[in-house]
Amino acid sequence: MRFIHTADWHIGRKLNGFDLLADQEAVFQKLVEVIKSQHVDAVVIAGDLYDRSLASEESVASLNQMLFCLNRELDLPLLVISGNHDSATRLSTGRQWFNQTQFFLNTQLKDAFEPVELGQTQFFLLPYFEPAQAREFFKDESLRTLNQAMPKVMKMLTKNFDPTKHHVLVGHFFAAGSTHTDSEIMVNVGGLDAVSLADLADFDYVALGHLHNRKAINEEKVQYAGSLLKFSVSEATQAKGVYLVNTETFERKFIELEPKHDLVHLTKSFAELTDPNFYHQINRDDFLALTLTDRDVITDAMAKLRDIYPHIIGVDRQHGVKLAHALNPQTVKLEPLNLLNRYYEETTGNKLSKQQLNWAQETLDSVKEENDAAN
Amino acid sequence: MRFIHTADWHIGRKLNGFDLLADQEAVFQKLVEVIKSQHVDAVVIAGDLYDRSLASEESVASLNQMLFCLNRELDLPLLVISGNHDSATRLSTGRQWFNQTQFFLNTQLKDAFEPVELGQTQFFLLPYFEPAQAREFFKDESLRTLNQAMPKVMKMLTKNFDPTKHHVLVGHFFAAGSTHTDSEIMVNVGGLDAVSLADLADFDYVALGHLHNRKAINEEKVQYAGSLLKFSVSEATQAKGVYLVNTETFERKFIELEPKHDLVHLTKSFAELTDPNFYHQINRDDFLALTLTDRDVITDAMAKLRDIYPHIIGVDRQHGVKLAHALNPQTVKLEPLNLLNRYYEETTGNKLSKQQLNWAQETLDSVKEENDAAN
Repeated sequence: MRFIHTADWHIGRKLNGFDLLADQEAVFQKLVEVIKSQHVDAVVIAGDLYDRSLASEESVASLNQMLFCLNRELDLPLLVISGNHDSATRLSTGRQWFNQTQFFLNTQLKDAFEPVELGQTQFFLLPYFEPAQAREFFKDESLRTLNQAMPKVMKMLTKNFDPTKHHVLVGHFFAAGSTHTDSEIMVNVGGLDAVSLADLADFDYVALGHLHNRKAINEEKVQYAGSLLKFSVSEATQAKGVYLVNTETFERKFIELEPKHDLVHLTKSFAELTDPNFYHQINRDDFLALTLTDRDVITDAMAKLRDIYPHIIGVDRQHGVKLAHALNPQTVKLEPLNLLNRYYEETTGNKLSKQQLNWAQETLDSVKEENDAAN
Repeated sequence: MRFIHTADWHIGRKLNGFDLLADQEAVFQKLVEVIKSQHVDAVVIAGDLYDRSLASEESVASLNQMLFCLNRELDLPLLVISGNHDSATRLSTGRQWFNQTQFFLNTQLKDAFEPVELGQTQFFLLPYFEPAQAREFFKDESLRTLNQAMPKVMKMLTKNFDPTKHHVLVGHFFAAGSTHTDSEIMVNVGGLDAVSLADLADFDYVALGHLHNRKAINEEKVQYAGSLLKFSVSEATQAKGVYLVNTETFERKFIELEPKHDLVHLTKSFAELTDPNFYHQINRDDFLALTLTDRDVITDAMAKLRDIYPHIIGVDRQHGVKLAHALNPQTVKLEPLNLLNRYYEETTGNKLSKQQLNWAQETLDSVKEENDAAN
């Protein structure tokens, strides 16, 4: 059989203020196309279905529809675990009814030990859990880290192995040796909460979620699916999609899914970016992180760029900005507050608010007082 | 067949700060006992399963367990609609899977017109809806009130009547002529959002939720189930429970359910209330609304009462309090702020906070200024 391995949908996520829901629904449709065109027997979703434990009504409606589509419309077995972004309790609503149509959803550690058998493969659905839950489950107060808990979990999982079958673990954790990007909120970064690869050795395939870069680890049997969309500039060059896994050979094939809006990092001069010959050739609708190569002050830069590019998620400078007063003797005469205001505007494209001006003035005043007192 | 008609569970509700979840779980167990001892074929829940559209995780876990118990453990058909307190979207999570085990859940107007047939009875599950939803559904901008929308809804419902069957409507609205207590939040009180009884005439039984007093309306075929628990002092004398309805005769029998803590209104003197001969004879654990018959100032009244009665939800005076300065010439000399402080403490059992004292002082100052200016 062949199953899709995906994870980290983060339904309801925002990208620097832009609502991604329509993009998430669009990439889901791409996934549906893949499922229809390939011979797919099941879908694994390895946690973080929602972006927040308290998802918005729109997100709930959207995810409900997606799960309904996969399990009831496409009639596919669905193997799902909760991630650290999901509320285990909220996500589990309806789970006791889901398994009637082979939609298997685990959100509690205690449920992980009963495998789901599809064909010749046993799937163990291990949801995200914290050491406290392991302490309670194993009645063992010494389990303070994931590192300590996981060998006990694995021992109990492998006890239920049918040796005549293949064994797949679906998990949502940080595997030792993997690297991470800016878009995952790391609950704990560091060795104690990373799962040792040795602990995973008994499985034929470990279908992971948690890290958004599918290449976060390079192991024969351990794979992150990666997110379906790019969630940060650091992922701009990553291809996003799903894995198609064959349970006879455990070969896996990455299938890229085209996003509605790509996330692109451009390093250009302001003149290039505002040149129609350039911007008519690219997809201006993409989410754009811009790095300006200019050194000069550019008046109203953000407003001008936003007129051309509606989805700018950030602008920075490659080399910093030349100090304004070095260019124009007039500005040397500006009061500190005005200088600050101008600098802020040049950098962010916005003026300081009244409140910000007040804070700045207060701070400048107190500095001046201290200076005067010192002199 | 015989079905239970219940409504307005309001899981997660608080009663003057006291968490009712344990009481709600306890009264649910009483309901389970009734279901087991009577011959019950189905359960109707007519809306407001949750108290808030964004229910707490504890409430979600609790309601999920209750619905699982009824539908899967007791193996009963479940006919459920959302009320104005529920989030239609959140509550509907899993609904497409529920009907496989005869758990029918409607949260959208559009779903109301397909009846659920159990034996010789058609159940129409009409969730709470607002005029805007009727406008959208009927593509009729003239529908500004429930009163205007309901005849169109009814006409469409009755179109699907099988004339050889009985017809039950499950609804969550204010039926014209009913009265309400303090614990329902009336979204709109008044004629335009009350449903005329004439609109309901075609049904053999109308199983309603929304009003917490089961006697809110006295009609042969229209019945509120009432809430399972008392949610306000105004309900202190109401019996709470469920109806058992026979679908041959549409006779209905009220079955009272005993709460874990009753809500009792006592009108007594402070001396009686603090007399062990009295309080050892009553259930001091009940939720108590106390009306003191005393006229005198009682120092530290609330603290002393709370020592005896842990679940006081309110204290007032039958006759007001005698003015302190009439009793004790010393207090006449108190400054206005001190008088206010003492009065507040006598009435509420609490002292004014620093912030409240500041507000009071500011107000007194401004009154004094105005007076001085006027004189």
